[in-house]
Amino acid sequence: MVSRRVSPNLALNQLVAERRAVGESIVHLGFGEARLPVFPPLMAELVTGAARNGYGPVAGGAAAREAAAGYFTRRRMPTEPDQVVVAPGSKPLLMALNMVVPGDVLLPRPCWNTYAPQAHLAGKTAISVPIPEDWGGVPEPGALRESIRAARVLGHDPRIMVLTMPDNPTGTVAPPELVRELCSIAEEEDLLIVSDEIYRDLVHDPDLPFLGPAEVAPRRTVVTTGLSKSLAIGGWRIGVIRFPEGPAGERIRDGVLSFASEVWSTLANPMQEVAAYALAEPPALLRHRAACARLHGIVARAVHRIVAGVGASCRPPTGGFYIYPDFEPLRETLGRHAVTDSASFERHLLDAFGVAVLGGHHLGDDGRALRIKMATAVLYGDTEEQQWEALHAADPLRVTHVAEVLGRIDESFTKLCG
Amino acid sequence: MVSRRVSPNLALNQLVAERRAVGESIVHLGFGEARLPVFPPLMAELVTGAARNGYGPVAGGAAAREAAAGYFTRRRMPTEPDQVVVAPGSKPLLMALNMVVPGDVLLPRPCWNTYAPQAHLAGKTAISVPIPEDWGGVPEPGALRESIRAARVLGHDPRIMVLTMPDNPTGTVAPPELVRELCSIAEEEDLLIVSDEIYRDLVHDPDLPFLGPAEVAPRRTVVTTGLSKSLAIGGWRIGVIRFPEGPAGERIRDGVLSFASEVWSTLANPMQEVAAYALAEPPALLRHRAACARLHGIVARAVHRIVAGVGASCRPPTGGFYIYPDFEPLRETLGRHAVTDSASFERHLLDAFGVAVLGGHHLGDDGRALRIKMATAVLYGDTEEQQWEALHAADPLRVTHVAEVLGRIDESFTKLCG
Repeated sequence: MVSRRVSPNLALNQLVAERRAVGESIVHLGFGEARLPVFPPLMAELVTGAARNGYGPVAGGAAAREAAAGYFTRRRMPTEPDQVVVAPGSKPLLMALNMVVPGDVLLPRPCWNTYAPQAHLAGKTAISVPIPEDWGGVPEPGALRESIRAARVLGHDPRIMVLTMPDNPTGTVAPPELVRELCSIAEEEDLLIVSDEIYRDLVHDPDLPFLGPAEVAPRRTVVTTGLSKSLAIGGWRIGVIRFPEGPAGERIRDGVLSFASEVWSTLANPMQEVAAYALAEPPALLRHRAACARLHGIVARAVHRIVAGVGASCRPPTGGFYIYPDFEPLRETLGRHAVTDSASFERHLLDAFGVAVLGGHHLGDDGRALRIKMATAVLYGDTEEQQWEALHAADPLRVTHVAEVLGRIDESFTKLCG
Repeated sequence: MVSRRVSPNLALNQLVAERRAVGESIVHLGFGEARLPVFPPLMAELVTGAARNGYGPVAGGAAAREAAAGYFTRRRMPTEPDQVVVAPGSKPLLMALNMVVPGDVLLPRPCWNTYAPQAHLAGKTAISVPIPEDWGGVPEPGALRESIRAARVLGHDPRIMVLTMPDNPTGTVAPPELVRELCSIAEEEDLLIVSDEIYRDLVHDPDLPFLGPAEVAPRRTVVTTGLSKSLAIGGWRIGVIRFPEGPAGERIRDGVLSFASEVWSTLANPMQEVAAYALAEPPALLRHRAACARLHGIVARAVHRIVAGVGASCRPPTGGFYIYPDFEPLRETLGRHAVTDSASFERHLLDAFGVAVLGGHHLGDDGRALRIKMATAVLYGDTEEQQWEALHAADPLRVTHVAEVLGRIDESFTKLCG
């Protein structure tokens, strides 16, 4: 019997919605949603796709898969359409991988709150490996070797390593040399790498070097992505997976297709039309997406300045829309408010300041630490008009409603830590 | 590791698409798709829903769940919105049930080809129980008692019974007295009933008595449905589940929501808009759906007459769009074409006549039998114009393109069995 707990980020999202419904004003930094309007051409594609009411191939239609192949190829991963499957989100694809690939799973600590529960649903052990000091989404190499050894002693069988690039929750991007080192450990230890690149198009500085593990270890890397984050259509549920070329990759793909055929059949056809358009990356879409990435970067850095300003230690964000501060330096101060671990921290921020965050304990992290995840892409305004305004502002931080909400966060943390 | 076989109906569908792409003319009776156009107001709802790009509640938004509650309530199952979850198809909901409810699964033999693989994915044993002579989708009561006893002797733990009403593949509807008998066995043996009612709105004769197990055994019956069949939008992926009222039902619902939150998050928001409209059943939609049910009945009965005419035995269809003939009386004749079991039967029909059907062996049935599933809702024409014409014709069987394809089926079976 599976647990009866809803995924904590989705649960928090519902709680916040309920409190807001009864009139509470809450700054919701606990949910990784890109709160931006739909890029209008995507709506046009959805309308075009509406007439496609029949079932299509399990893997997705040719147009969507060809567009996805081009998308990966442009990122230095030469790809044939047969290596691609589209689905209602990258979540079901990651679940399928868990069901199909044998062995236990190595996860960075902290990491996205769904990796571990999926591993457990598939009967696997999730082995949590600390991240390095400077970047998240990847295990620290020494700790990785040690964790593999220790896991084997305990009778576990680590065969899969999940990397998140850029990372949720730290908002950082592992540098090329580190990716190379992890890939070489994967070769030595015969691990399959699952590279979750759903934030890849939201690297803040387009010139930041990005080396994907599929470039270094192409035969042993599966890549997942989706349109939920980069194009702010989480509610449309569009995910993509790329399998390695060659027989081993084909075996995994066939297993995923078998699982897909029994569990979700196929991505809704109208959404495939959207995927085909978006993954072909026409210039107008690229411009829009670049504007989104810029905005995410500016606001994430602003929130980082706030927490750093009150004395928390925090990796500077370079991709996606999260920061993951550690308030250990302020333990004594926070203790005065009965904040002694990440659960009480999360609760106090919500109850005393109406600020919703996700405690590190939900992400596999040590619950005794004072670490929290703050999702910053929800600060662009409540209306589409406000969101467009933030997106196109020369200085988004001077847009009134953005400045106001940042001011409220600043005030809350200053009061708490002062 | 899961099997690497794609669900056989979806696999056949792809094979047929590939053969057609190279110019072969194939009558495709192997795939349970309602080949009819989208009812235009549904497209309008999809367009309205397009702006809803954010994630919503895992269970589905209030509007969709309220509409679903009304839908069930109108069918003599009083329902609160909290008892309902919407999802990308009823398939993931059925999979979630398999993961959440402990014990092994009792299935009618034959049955829809996805029930057993889902049970296996969840680590369950699928216990196959023969259907009665007159109806499918339900186990024969004597055989059910016997199967439960035998399964327990073997160390299995049957706890779930799946009923399909109306049935895929037999196209029949179990009568009220039989449903009552099965519900009383469920009470005695403490079974959870999963009533798959995805074809419920496609009973051919609106006056046919329909008694759902949730009316008889409300505390132990979970009901699933969806819009794929009744509104011909399989490619949109919209499914619904109704849990029993009370603590036991709530526990199952919470487990399903937990699984949903980790595996698919939520039904795409634009599709929820469609669900909210369709499940409210406005009069125009009811008229459209009734026309569909009438057409399905007329054509299913026509195909039934063809196979009965050549000497096969076959339950007369009363719901959905399938028939499941048994060619045992023609074993000698078919043997001359090296057709000796359902696999060779399926192959021969495709190769010699270009007629695609699904052999009974894919549906849990004895592969040595000469039983095949014929899906008849794919005979209404290749273009939307032809499909509308068939739908609105006073006598669909006299519409040229429908008459032609039925003639081809008649000719094929007459030649094969003559």
